[in-house]
Amino acid sequence: MRQSMTLIPTLRELPSDAEIKSHQLLLRAGFIKQIASGVYSYLPLAKRALDHIEQIIREEMENAGAAELLLPALQPAELWQSSGRWYTYGDELMRMQDRHDRSFALGPTHEEVITSIVSDGIPSYKRLPIILYQIQTKFRDEKRPRFGLLRGREFIMKDAYSFHTSAESLDEAYQKMYQAYTNIFTRCGLDFRAVLADSGAIGGKDTQEFMVLSEIGEDTIAYSDGSTYAANIEMAEVHQVYERPDEPEKELSKVETPGQKTIAEVSGFLNVQSSNIIKSLVLIVDEEPVMVLVRGDHEINDIKVKNALNAGSVEFADEERTKELLNCSFGSIGPVNLPGTMKIVADKAVEAMVNAVCGANEEDFHYINVVPGRDFTVEKYADLRFIQEGDPSPDGKGIIRFARGIEVGHIFKLGTTYSEAMSATYLDENGKPHPYIMGCYGIGVSRTLSAVAEQFNDENGLIWPASIAPYDIHLIPVNMKDAEQADLAEKLYTELREHRYSVLFDDRNERPGVKFKDSDLIGMPVRVTVGKKAAEGIVEIKIRKSGEMQEVKAEELLDVLTDIFKEL
Amino acid sequence: MRQSMTLIPTLRELPSDAEIKSHQLLLRAGFIKQIASGVYSYLPLAKRALDHIEQIIREEMENAGAAELLLPALQPAELWQSSGRWYTYGDELMRMQDRHDRSFALGPTHEEVITSIVSDGIPSYKRLPIILYQIQTKFRDEKRPRFGLLRGREFIMKDAYSFHTSAESLDEAYQKMYQAYTNIFTRCGLDFRAVLADSGAIGGKDTQEFMVLSEIGEDTIAYSDGSTYAANIEMAEVHQVYERPDEPEKELSKVETPGQKTIAEVSGFLNVQSSNIIKSLVLIVDEEPVMVLVRGDHEINDIKVKNALNAGSVEFADEERTKELLNCSFGSIGPVNLPGTMKIVADKAVEAMVNAVCGANEEDFHYINVVPGRDFTVEKYADLRFIQEGDPSPDGKGIIRFARGIEVGHIFKLGTTYSEAMSATYLDENGKPHPYIMGCYGIGVSRTLSAVAEQFNDENGLIWPASIAPYDIHLIPVNMKDAEQADLAEKLYTELREHRYSVLFDDRNERPGVKFKDSDLIGMPVRVTVGKKAAEGIVEIKIRKSGEMQEVKAEELLDVLTDIFKEL
Repeated sequence: MRQSMTLIPTLRELPSDAEIKSHQLLLRAGFIKQIASGVYSYLPLAKRALDHIEQIIREEMENAGAAELLLPALQPAELWQSSGRWYTYGDELMRMQDRHDRSFALGPTHEEVITSIVSDGIPSYKRLPIILYQIQTKFRDEKRPRFGLLRGREFIMKDAYSFHTSAESLDEAYQKMYQAYTNIFTRCGLDFRAVLADSGAIGGKDTQEFMVLSEIGEDTIAYSDGSTYAANIEMAEVHQVYERPDEPEKELSKVETPGQKTIAEVSGFLNVQSSNIIKSLVLIVDEEPVMVLVRGDHEINDIKVKNALNAGSVEFADEERTKELLNCSFGSIGPVNLPGTMKIVADKAVEAMVNAVCGANEEDFHYINVVPGRDFTVEKYADLRFIQEGDPSPDGKGIIRFARGIEVGHIFKLGTTYSEAMSATYLDENGKPHPYIMGCYGIGVSRTLSAVAEQFNDENGLIWPASIAPYDIHLIPVNMKDAEQADLAEKLYTELREHRYSVLFDDRNERPGVKFKDSDLIGMPVRVTVGKKAAEGIVEIKIRKSGEMQEVKAEELLDVLTDIFKEL
Repeated sequence: MRQSMTLIPTLRELPSDAEIKSHQLLLRAGFIKQIASGVYSYLPLAKRALDHIEQIIREEMENAGAAELLLPALQPAELWQSSGRWYTYGDELMRMQDRHDRSFALGPTHEEVITSIVSDGIPSYKRLPIILYQIQTKFRDEKRPRFGLLRGREFIMKDAYSFHTSAESLDEAYQKMYQAYTNIFTRCGLDFRAVLADSGAIGGKDTQEFMVLSEIGEDTIAYSDGSTYAANIEMAEVHQVYERPDEPEKELSKVETPGQKTIAEVSGFLNVQSSNIIKSLVLIVDEEPVMVLVRGDHEINDIKVKNALNAGSVEFADEERTKELLNCSFGSIGPVNLPGTMKIVADKAVEAMVNAVCGANEEDFHYINVVPGRDFTVEKYADLRFIQEGDPSPDGKGIIRFARGIEVGHIFKLGTTYSEAMSATYLDENGKPHPYIMGCYGIGVSRTLSAVAEQFNDENGLIWPASIAPYDIHLIPVNMKDAEQADLAEKLYTELREHRYSVLFDDRNERPGVKFKDSDLIGMPVRVTVGKKAAEGIVEIKIRKSGEMQEVKAEELLDVLTDIFKEL
């Protein structure tokens, strides 16, 4: 494409409202343009990069045996009412009325639509399993759209849905999708992790998020430095084995700790390590108070408490409620001589504590030399704490580190949540109806574009991986008015395209400085400059990523490029 | 693609609410599925056909020098207010509020968005002209959605916009687009005409619609049987030269015509040809009554009256108004002895009439032997009538025929309508601002899919042109449980795809009758059947279009297919 015929409105100044690199650079390099809060136009360079990401996705979806279709954005309210989401989705669901006052949602996802289509179209077990996907524009009315394409209100997603007659069949599709997603993000050049995630309120069991590692990510990931293990920190299991120290049990005694409330205060006052203090908190579990214990250097993970107690709801009791129950404030409660019949559960680390410290359920007093089991009874020991940096990885390989991540993909075993709500069933061999067993699998396409921009840039601009760069080569004649340069550039433009390179040809009459600055900013993998040595048939190659430059004879250019693109 | 892994929910019964062939067949063949009135899902076969149409469009747009981008569906009300269309577009514009009660339109077209982007991004004449396009989902709240994809409320369009500094530059882009559209619809296999159209209220001058010829079309086209001339019937100029018959003028006289009102009645009663009767009607032109005359066998075209008189508004006077003005009813008015000062204009055909008949402005009386010019004065003779079948073509080549057409494309010189309304200007060489001169160019992509289905079908189903067929080949083993058939089919499935054919492989365990019926219904260009002769290495080819069948040896299949696809 000749640069004079396309639209790349680069900006010299930093857009004032863009907080993160990818947003700033996509704006400055003329890739996107905001038209309303969280709503963007994809200008020609962004469109080409999106096409390349979509092409990678299509190829991997096809390899995974998924068939592509295209569902509408307009979804009648009745469909969303049948799944219940019309009432629960809240303000993020964009809603509208048509001219006849019928209500519609603008689809943020398509579980209802696809379930209704499959329910009509595949009445029998004979045509199952099936995986269907689409790449489509979605709508979600984010409260605070931000970070450009990362959290927009109109965005492009790949969403896939699978339908099965058995959990095993769903497992198989889930694994295929896991592999496809791994391939997709690898091909996009991204540094990412597949992260165990919480399945949340939707039900279903397995779910993984594909997270691009980035400081600006909104989620924290616990990952192993010695394996592929990664999980959202709420989800990471602690498999540490705690050894009980080999020391004689001392006699329980109560000591005065005036004004000492926090773990740090008590630790300092009594001169004990925080790992030898029992942290006690009251949680309201299905409306019953339960005392939960962890080590003073650990944090309670309420999701784990919920799962361990098989509970419907778990909440931390506030100080007022705690006082009502135990007659003292947060910093003084503990499991010894607990008034009433409150149940006690504890993290496994607590089981290995000897001669520990805990609150005495009396203001300004703590017990010392506390021995769990001897001084109080624990109903259940379980993994109840958040994993920490430095913990051993749950898979036994390596040590846990933390990172922040941008979610770009999500695979999810839905089970029968939607099919049951919508009475969507297939008939088995005996003509008996069963709800479809479902999986769903999403990729944020426009978000992936941003994530790549966030990971690949330097002080001069964007640095696109060859797999998704808008063009392979940025061809720049330094001076279009110099006939030798213009002629050689035109010749190379034709030749390179004949050899299946995509080429952006800067045929503008701009100063060389402007052309080079723009070129670094928009960041094609390779720049070919036709300058003064055009007369001698020599051009210059610059690799954007490394900054490496070399002069080559025009007739050797193709060979050199072949080698360069093998490396990129 | 294995048929067991995709979704092709064919129907045996005719959908009751589908009136036209394409709608019926696209539903029955499992291409589309309605989700709400005028809102459809594109199932996997339709998605593939759409992809092929879009690919053709992209190639031709690129050849025409257009750059692709992607604009958002959500468009802030302020943009539409700036062009004025927020107030004039009416109920067809889908509108909604976001969570902060800000108003948005769901884009039916994108003149405002693109004008605002170009206005920001291309401030100088140096970067003009430019042609930008997108392929995108559009929304229009049709009052009566019908005919499936032909008149939907959510549909896919290619829309292109060009920006210029001169009318000549716009002409050039318009011609390029004309050629691109001609190539696109030709490559889609369609029988179409580029038709001169009315530029309507938007202003601008040249505009052509690309019409696929079809009985179910909503527009009537006048086309030449001897050239490429075609126009909407309102637009077709009449270039006929009328010869005054060589007969002596007779004396004007008034005759009684009791109860004879219509042309047919008067013609019968007086035994004269309708072509010798002057048809007189009163039109209100910019609030002034004007009498308009055409020959009895012709019809008044009010758009031509408007253009001939350079008027702002033209309406037919109703009978009441006519009576007020001339004191007699419709069937009795005429230009002779017209009371008052009413202006008379006449179609050119009237100038050549001699000894004609007209109303006498008196109930139950007509004049005979009327001679225009002698018996009344005509202010202006002009082309004021609709063209008719049998008229000579305005380009002098051939005879006019009528046909009905489905509009699939539209090219339009907008001029400065939008840029002036939105104050969108570029700076010229001297730093002086001018509004951009614009063109816009649309193609209904999903509509084109329907138009193809409407033109290519028979009693057994759809017949896709090879250029846009979802798959090139439908490969059908008659009995998948027969190992020889299954093996040969699998081998061919691999081999054909290696030779870059797209193949739909019917690996279902269905009866042969069901497979063949489905195959004819969905209509891939070529069917390859692997049946009992698989043991001898023989397969059967069927060409869907001609019904032609032949047996070939499996090892010769590729050669035979090469020849067949050359013809298709």
